[in-house]
Amino acid sequence: MTGDAPHLRADFDALAAIGADPAGGWSRPAYGPEECAAHEWFAARAHAIGMSVRQDAFGNSIARLPGADDLPVLVIGSHLDTVAQGGLYDGALGVLAGLEVARRIAGDATPQARPLEVIAFRDEEGRFGAFTGSRAMAGQLPEDALARMRAADGAVLGPAMAAAGFAPARADAARRDMSGIAAYLELHIEQGPVLEAAGEPLGVVTAIAGQERFSVRFTGEAGHAGTTPMTQRHDAFAAAARFADRFREMILAEGKSSARGTIGIVKLSPNQGNVIPSEVTLGLEIRDISAQLLADLAARVAVIATEAAEAMGVTAQCRRSYGAAPVPMNAGLISVIEEAARAAGFAAPRLPSGANHDAGVIGALVPAAMLFVPSVGGLSHAPEEHTDWPHIVAATDVLESVTRRLLGARDIPSC
Amino acid sequence: MTGDAPHLRADFDALAAIGADPAGGWSRPAYGPEECAAHEWFAARAHAIGMSVRQDAFGNSIARLPGADDLPVLVIGSHLDTVAQGGLYDGALGVLAGLEVARRIAGDATPQARPLEVIAFRDEEGRFGAFTGSRAMAGQLPEDALARMRAADGAVLGPAMAAAGFAPARADAARRDMSGIAAYLELHIEQGPVLEAAGEPLGVVTAIAGQERFSVRFTGEAGHAGTTPMTQRHDAFAAAARFADRFREMILAEGKSSARGTIGIVKLSPNQGNVIPSEVTLGLEIRDISAQLLADLAARVAVIATEAAEAMGVTAQCRRSYGAAPVPMNAGLISVIEEAARAAGFAAPRLPSGANHDAGVIGALVPAAMLFVPSVGGLSHAPEEHTDWPHIVAATDVLESVTRRLLGARDIPSC
Repeated sequence: MTGDAPHLRADFDALAAIGADPAGGWSRPAYGPEECAAHEWFAARAHAIGMSVRQDAFGNSIARLPGADDLPVLVIGSHLDTVAQGGLYDGALGVLAGLEVARRIAGDATPQARPLEVIAFRDEEGRFGAFTGSRAMAGQLPEDALARMRAADGAVLGPAMAAAGFAPARADAARRDMSGIAAYLELHIEQGPVLEAAGEPLGVVTAIAGQERFSVRFTGEAGHAGTTPMTQRHDAFAAAARFADRFREMILAEGKSSARGTIGIVKLSPNQGNVIPSEVTLGLEIRDISAQLLADLAARVAVIATEAAEAMGVTAQCRRSYGAAPVPMNAGLISVIEEAARAAGFAAPRLPSGANHDAGVIGALVPAAMLFVPSVGGLSHAPEEHTDWPHIVAATDVLESVTRRLLGARDIPSC
Repeated sequence: MTGDAPHLRADFDALAAIGADPAGGWSRPAYGPEECAAHEWFAARAHAIGMSVRQDAFGNSIARLPGADDLPVLVIGSHLDTVAQGGLYDGALGVLAGLEVARRIAGDATPQARPLEVIAFRDEEGRFGAFTGSRAMAGQLPEDALARMRAADGAVLGPAMAAAGFAPARADAARRDMSGIAAYLELHIEQGPVLEAAGEPLGVVTAIAGQERFSVRFTGEAGHAGTTPMTQRHDAFAAAARFADRFREMILAEGKSSARGTIGIVKLSPNQGNVIPSEVTLGLEIRDISAQLLADLAARVAVIATEAAEAMGVTAQCRRSYGAAPVPMNAGLISVIEEAARAAGFAAPRLPSGANHDAGVIGALVPAAMLFVPSVGGLSHAPEEHTDWPHIVAATDVLESVTRRLLGARDIPSC
């Protein structure tokens, strides 16, 4: 235990000076000057504690503490970019905690058996897509990614990377042989209300939820709101509302706290007070950590959409716009984290990650695990994003303990 | 009976040449050159059959056929303006049918006892508000109407009227002593599907429905769609959807074909796929011909909004944005129309008018009645707006019969 973790605090405060946005919060968009400055700062700090630092073809910063033996590396990773006017904790905390753990281990009299890397990935927040850095490292960027991936402001990935000093000729230029990575750890803010509500300073992620996204379009007939009797209507919003209510009930009926269904987008046409809506498009998503449940729920979307449509004399069309499989965290690593947490006096409840992370990309290829710390008010992606400092210190201490255990072992516990 | 009503047909075709919109349909916006041209054409046609014609301070055209006695006048009215890219029948048909009836009566060997006026009102469609012409005649325009009433394109009523050659100094400059009007008749397209579905060429309006309009705002909390468990959400759209379903059921449960409830406007914030909606605003309206039922339904809007809000952990706020009382048509006039229709072999079913009309403004002050003719497909306010010609001829014949009956009577039947 290290009390207030003053070095971590100093790093946290130093990083907070990079990308402070005059409009509020912090803005370090991927490959922009602020994210690059954060990576330079990170490299300098890692150097200062005796780590070697390199940047791969996509600008992911990889700080390395050598091990005594030639073993696959343990990686602690997260990211330094932010959403526009985001907060201080999302991503940054995981990189800083990794740096703090490396600092403590670098101060040891004898080196650990296994090498340790702290990786700051690029563009986790998806300025140019999502998880650009970790996907590049995982070899998962499509061939035309550099020319095709585009920010909302029109910037294109390839030229933006070139402007930042990186100009890979191929999208898979940062691809890494994953057999060289023994395990991946990531500490991250929960970005949800679960740990705060439970009064726990840290939790262990069971799996990163998979997602299914749909666009559901109800098509009826416009009509005069005054002259069209209720029984002669083909009201697209009546169907959409019925569907939305049933959709929510379907998710709740599973009784699984990991299952989530959200209708975040609603578009009406013509959206006029005295006209019966002729068309309503809903943008919805379902998340769960079970691939089977996710598939079941996804299949039922079309069923309840059709039921609601038929009840209202309209038609429904469901289009799947995105799908991502759940990524289970490694059971052996989860146990190691739980042991370390409980040894330190924390219950470390298990919880799913409803949001995706770099751990979801890397964790699909190597054993991975995540620690969550509470987000006050469940808030993230906002200037008010906050995690109490004692929780950060507690989780960093547990991360250190886990890291020491894994670095010292010739075999990573796995399941 | 007049067979195909060739004069009416000729008028119909002549008017169709005024305001044909290159973009499709017909556009005769209030006080614009096309509406003015239509009024000039109307005045010329009325002159040609021996009517005197004047325009009041608001440009309402009033064509008069004198009666033998000094009795309050019978008015047949409607309007010549259209919505942008509207159709040929809405409003125009009522004015042309009135002109046709006046033409037939003007051709009689002996004059009728009571004078007849055919009035073409201005701006029924509400370019500058709604029912500008008839409200001016009814003395219902607010004092600052000329400076305040404004079109969507920014045009202001006063200057637009001045450009069209009318420049009243006061909003009530066209106000008319309603004791000089014995009764008001209006033939109009139904703008709904009821008569077509019933296979009837004409119907008699029981009342013009009153309206209550509300803006209902549900306020919850934004949250990450992935990280916020279903049971910890404050989802404003979940509440809005539940409310919308219950709102529709509430209207249907009345079992009254005249009762209508429509949610035409839905606005979500932030309206993003991965964010739980924090705020949803619904624009809704209720219509019925019973003031009591309208008040009951309106009162229950807040109740079911609060129930839905409480079920979803959000709050609801209802704001009444508009209210208009139902305007019952005159029972005596309804009977006269029914007798004339049945004598001609038509069932002339009664139906409410869900839409408001000039008859709703004038009919609040003098005995009034309306005949509806079917709208093919229930369509209006569109270039495709259509009523079969035989239905128009049948309804005009009935209107003639009713007009003769009322013009010949010293006392208008009333109830």
